[in-house]
Amino acid sequence: MFEFDVQHREGRARVGQFLTPRGTVTTPMFMPVGTQGTVKGLSPQELTDIRSQMILANTYHLMLRPGEGLVEQHGGLPGFTGYPGPFLTDSGGFQVMSLGHLRKITEQGVVFKSHVDGRQIDLTPERSIQVQEALGADVIMAFDECPPFPAERDYIQRSLERTVRWLERCLSVKSRPDQALFAIVQGGIHPDLRDQSIALTLPFETPGFAIGGLAVGESKAEMYPAVAHTAAQLPEAKPRYLMGVGHPEDLVAGIALGVDMFDCVYPTRTGRFGYALTDRGRLNMNSSAPRTDLGPLDPQCDCYACRHYSRAYLAHLVRAEEMLGPRMLSLHNLRYLHRLVEQARVQIVAGTFHTWARNWALQYFAGTI
Amino acid sequence: MFEFDVQHREGRARVGQFLTPRGTVTTPMFMPVGTQGTVKGLSPQELTDIRSQMILANTYHLMLRPGEGLVEQHGGLPGFTGYPGPFLTDSGGFQVMSLGHLRKITEQGVVFKSHVDGRQIDLTPERSIQVQEALGADVIMAFDECPPFPAERDYIQRSLERTVRWLERCLSVKSRPDQALFAIVQGGIHPDLRDQSIALTLPFETPGFAIGGLAVGESKAEMYPAVAHTAAQLPEAKPRYLMGVGHPEDLVAGIALGVDMFDCVYPTRTGRFGYALTDRGRLNMNSSAPRTDLGPLDPQCDCYACRHYSRAYLAHLVRAEEMLGPRMLSLHNLRYLHRLVEQARVQIVAGTFHTWARNWALQYFAGTI
Ligand SMILES: [Zn+2]
Ligand SMILES: [Zn+2]
Repeated sequence: MFEFDVQHREGRARVGQFLTPRGTVTTPMFMPVGTQGTVKGLSPQELTDIRSQMILANTYHLMLRPGEGLVEQHGGLPGFTGYPGPFLTDSGGFQVMSLGHLRKITEQGVVFKSHVDGRQIDLTPERSIQVQEALGADVIMAFDECPPFPAERDYIQRSLERTVRWLERCLSVKSRPDQALFAIVQGGIHPDLRDQSIALTLPFETPGFAIGGLAVGESKAEMYPAVAHTAAQLPEAKPRYLMGVGHPEDLVAGIALGVDMFDCVYPTRTGRFGYALTDRGRLNMNSSAPRTDLGPLDPQCDCYACRHYSRAYLAHLVRAEEMLGPRMLSLHNLRYLHRLVEQARVQIVAGTFHTWARNWALQYFAGTI
Repeated sequence: MFEFDVQHREGRARVGQFLTPRGTVTTPMFMPVGTQGTVKGLSPQELTDIRSQMILANTYHLMLRPGEGLVEQHGGLPGFTGYPGPFLTDSGGFQVMSLGHLRKITEQGVVFKSHVDGRQIDLTPERSIQVQEALGADVIMAFDECPPFPAERDYIQRSLERTVRWLERCLSVKSRPDQALFAIVQGGIHPDLRDQSIALTLPFETPGFAIGGLAVGESKAEMYPAVAHTAAQLPEAKPRYLMGVGHPEDLVAGIALGVDMFDCVYPTRTGRFGYALTDRGRLNMNSSAPRTDLGPLDPQCDCYACRHYSRAYLAHLVRAEEMLGPRMLSLHNLRYLHRLVEQARVQIVAGTFHTWARNWALQYFAGTI
């Protein structure tokens, strides 16, 4: 039911096909984040139009509101959200640790107060899997402990060991064969701790592996080596998912380092703040230049916003605080990242990825926008 | 370039075809309001999908931001907003009187301070036409004085006479033959003042006539007789536009009284507040019942929201304050009003409108939702 087939390689970069119950996706890919069961502002039709392949939904948010039972009554996330393609749910662990109030982490799991209504909630590996089975995504994630940055080396060490014990508990209660559970490698930015985590995690032979614990506050100069070190040791024949990472340059770098899957709220969040992603950097729609620019946001882009609107109109929407503004910038930014990974795939197939990536970065960071 | 052809009648109700430079529209029709050059939250594609026929845009808002010059540089509203069909612009008069700060009305026009940046602005009949010609709508409106409710009879009298003098000034500066200017009948809720306004206005033989000065605070028991009294005296061969009116029951009543065109922010505004229009009344998505209802908002509706989502999902979006909630409720509510006028047209053609209207009202006000 889950197969991953690497079809092309250039250096560590690769193009693969990942077969899931709701369709085959091509990697590398970027997953839009639908935190509360909706990618902010966008309809499922638009996600299909911009060629999204897999949508991430958050276990933490959905278990609190509306509750996983209601989603299950709809036949899971596709029935609930109207998006018919594959989904991935996170385990809730990361959000519990960043959003839960008065949280307490023990070997058993995490106890916290809901940010929605203050209820006290227990989230354990077993409960996370139970919720994720009710939500019904195609890919589900192991319940892990993600240390903040910076954290004591000693804490990172204990926590990566606990994450492995939690993985074991997740696997022991998992009951749905139509869901692939991915294990998560931790270890912060310490190569030796990453090695330990990898050594303890790989034997579980889960159908995919995630690189967790990054993009939590460390610099890119700290993150990229950790990604490189980890990705190089993950099995060739399994998809590799770099969690919570999704700036354009991170996708290009991550792909070069052998990563297959990415997710991040960045494209929609920066869109709501009035920024548009382009090959020449991030365009601030609140600045003065776009206000009188009759050209499209990005002449290369095939999204609805770029085909129908001028920069001046989009800047007007942003200034006038019209809902269509953040909606269209979110749409464009997601399409930008999808186009970026599509281009990367084409370049890998052609064996020109590294040259392309270098040129892309030169232009992106030239900041000529 | 502008022709209006009444094709079917039942009592005073009628079905017509109104030919405009950007396409023929069928009346009775409801016009979504795109105040700042966007129907809040919706794309032009969605407006086409729900079979909107003509979009209203506000002269007052667009002249202040982004300025009519920028819209003109885009080739007018269709190029600026991406909606390719017919537009109607109001004259700015109503908004100046309700939104302008420190406004002062004289025979010359209105002086006010912009609510956007505090600039002092003069809006005169001549300037209103100049702006409306730059915006480039198919139908433009005469600059009128719309008294508040309640107002002194004497003031209404003087103001309707001034409105006629302003109409004359509008017509004398109007230069674009591809825009139809509609005159506006005033007179408040006083039948004799309406008669005076009609007698002074009809001789200008504009290609359409609007019923202004209503839906400004009077009760429906005061509004409907004023509509009836006015519509009955307007020429049979010209479209009749009841300005700013658009509750479902107002459309049904207005159509029965011979009105052809309506506009109102109500469907999108009530949608943003979490309400959905249905044949059984207005459904509050913040109430408890929809939260667990797996059925669609309205099984009869063909809009995207009704075809893809349960009431429970839409209620979740509203509670979670997700942008897709107001967007989908706005879409549904506009489609509801478009479907309502489409049904009215079918019933008029069949000669069953009055029976249908009575049954519709019985069900709508039964409040069984
Ligand atoms: Zn675009
Ligand atoms: Zn609907």
